[in-house]
Amino acid sequence: MFKGALPGFRDFYPQELSERAFIMATWREVARRYAFVEYDGPPLEPLELYTRKSGDEIVGQLYNFVDKGGRDVAMRPEMTPTVARMVAARANALRKPVRWFSMPQLFRYERQQKGRLREHFQLNVDIFGAADVAADAELVACAVDIMRAFGLGSQDVVVRVSDRRILQAYLESLGVPAEAVHGVYGVIDKLERQPAAVSAEKLVALGVPADAIDRIVTIADVAFDELSSRLATTSAAPVVQEFADFLRFVPALLGGDESWLRLDLSIVRGLAYYTGIVFELFDRSGEFRAICGGGRYDTLLQSLGGSELPALGFGMGDVVLGELLRAKGLMRPADTRADYWISAADDVPLDTIMREAARLRAEGQSVEYALRAQSLSKQKKAAQASGAKTFVTLTNDGTNG
Amino acid sequence: MFKGALPGFRDFYPQELSERAFIMATWREVARRYAFVEYDGPPLEPLELYTRKSGDEIVGQLYNFVDKGGRDVAMRPEMTPTVARMVAARANALRKPVRWFSMPQLFRYERQQKGRLREHFQLNVDIFGAADVAADAELVACAVDIMRAFGLGSQDVVVRVSDRRILQAYLESLGVPAEAVHGVYGVIDKLERQPAAVSAEKLVALGVPADAIDRIVTIADVAFDELSSRLATTSAAPVVQEFADFLRFVPALLGGDESWLRLDLSIVRGLAYYTGIVFELFDRSGEFRAICGGGRYDTLLQSLGGSELPALGFGMGDVVLGELLRAKGLMRPADTRADYWISAADDVPLDTIMREAARLRAEGQSVEYALRAQSLSKQKKAAQASGAKTFVTLTNDGTNG
Repeated sequence: MFKGALPGFRDFYPQELSERAFIMATWREVARRYAFVEYDGPPLEPLELYTRKSGDEIVGQLYNFVDKGGRDVAMRPEMTPTVARMVAARANALRKPVRWFSMPQLFRYERQQKGRLREHFQLNVDIFGAADVAADAELVACAVDIMRAFGLGSQDVVVRVSDRRILQAYLESLGVPAEAVHGVYGVIDKLERQPAAVSAEKLVALGVPADAIDRIVTIADVAFDELSSRLATTSAAPVVQEFADFLRFVPALLGGDESWLRLDLSIVRGLAYYTGIVFELFDRSGEFRAICGGGRYDTLLQSLGGSELPALGFGMGDVVLGELLRAKGLMRPADTRADYWISAADDVPLDTIMREAARLRAEGQSVEYALRAQSLSKQKKAAQASGAKTFVTLTNDGTNG
Repeated sequence: MFKGALPGFRDFYPQELSERAFIMATWREVARRYAFVEYDGPPLEPLELYTRKSGDEIVGQLYNFVDKGGRDVAMRPEMTPTVARMVAARANALRKPVRWFSMPQLFRYERQQKGRLREHFQLNVDIFGAADVAADAELVACAVDIMRAFGLGSQDVVVRVSDRRILQAYLESLGVPAEAVHGVYGVIDKLERQPAAVSAEKLVALGVPADAIDRIVTIADVAFDELSSRLATTSAAPVVQEFADFLRFVPALLGGDESWLRLDLSIVRGLAYYTGIVFELFDRSGEFRAICGGGRYDTLLQSLGGSELPALGFGMGDVVLGELLRAKGLMRPADTRADYWISAADDVPLDTIMREAARLRAEGQSVEYALRAQSLSKQKKAAQASGAKTFVTLTNDGTNG
């Protein structure tokens, strides 16, 4: 007997496929409005593409193997290395800024937990060759407009934004020693998931001054005005000014809607390669994992041996988003019912039904009928079961019943 | 520096992606008209799913490996085992006939040759639970309507049809010994690619009677009327009658167009599991490999340990089809140019452009603009380079230039 799919892999029966198609169609439509164009790369890549960016420790999470030609290969765990490779290969020929999106299926050998998948689809939206914060604002606005296209509002979802450079300057202004900054990032990244006392203890151990501990533990609440005045006379002042532009640009791109953004310096994001503004979208209830995350990674292409293009992007997976949409009653799977079901009186030959099907299909209608000669009552039962939108019955005198 | 994609794997830059999207959108649209609904399965499956159907020799062509949980797995080389597994798992619950399609990316470790890929996308259209030839006709008509949707006519493409049961009965009527039939299939399968004398020699060696040799070498030319009268008094007569229905049904489903089908008993198809009508679509010029192939495989689900549903289906890859469309000038990639490019006079702040972009995007327009403050002349140069359909210039007195 057949076993099922591998653990962590999904079968998409028509119902699940229609939900996936709804999500992807919405992603594609909003990306198009923002003038992003679609690309794709191979789902299997040289293993080195991933170890070069993430180090050898990534291998433990990969579906990697040696192919029949002796090559070390891996199923793609993320899209950034592929798109970086593709952009680098045509860095001179491509019109800048490069505005690309893709919806790859990605694979990670995650330790198995309930509901944890080993594959998912992820919208990747990236801009290459744009150094200014207007590009960061475009990306965030695009992510928010995707939420709006799904029917989600700022009462449902919040965009937490931060900036790596501002966070660093803020920590320095609090007297955090330079050599402790990286460790402090780690503590900040865990603030939401561990008791304040534990975080405080760790900060003490890192050599953070006593009067800075409280401020770091509550760093998520720092307001922009406070940051702005605190850093006004530091070397970070221009970065703060850029961030102010960013905070103004995003609402401009949302038609004046100022309700989505929240400055939150506790957004560190695990990935080591971010260099500027970073952001994450969360449901306001805090029930789900991050819906979307991204930011600026200006040095990544160069560090991978590619071109020197500034770069920024975000990823949005189909799994958390799907859970949220279902929870909010906003999942609207594509309608897969046929437009027409054609039945015919017992003395009407099958050919007649087929010619009528051909006529309707040529008009773009979807048509189903019984694939064998059957009594009218059997046909009608099948027609009802199909859920088709319109029922047509052909009779032998040429009329439709 | 970055290396490229693995040999045999494609990068889909926006140009290539838009061609792929054109092909897939056309596949999807015609499948929908025929009331097929979309499904998908995992690109990675237990290795056993493929060896059970095709034997261990398939492994030499697979991207197979042992995953981190010790499972023997393989990247899918074809969709049929997955769909058979999925249908079997819900055989009772699914409404019959099951009419499904999918467009999976498939993977084979082919020996490397110029232009031979190791991945391709393949439209799979299948019907489960329909035993009559009306279902075979639906499938063939769907494949032909896909050709027509691409702008291909019967002057470009021919559907060669055969029936395993009729071929067998015909060979028996020629006196081919039962134990030689399988070997004769092999010779017939190669008729087009080897000299007639070589084929004849092989037939003699198989014990085929002398007066049958010529008829087998020219089997592609056997007309239906000849078959029909020759087999009228044999046990194959009902099958011939079904085939006559099939030959009438397909044109009925094509709105009366009789120009696509050609009876060709030399169509054997390599796959061992076909049990009835088989068909292949070829370009008439004979320049390309088969565009599409399929047929009835009523016993496969059962032999795989699943349910006893009759089944039939076809596969159509994106590579040969793409070559044919390009050769005929029929490749119509999706238009990826932005609807609008917004520029602004030097004294207009970026925020103003952004608000105009937001307004147009909310109307469903795609909009691009310079992602930094730039002189109007620089913006106009960028606008031209983008190929956007409409250029808008904002001036500070509130008018659009």
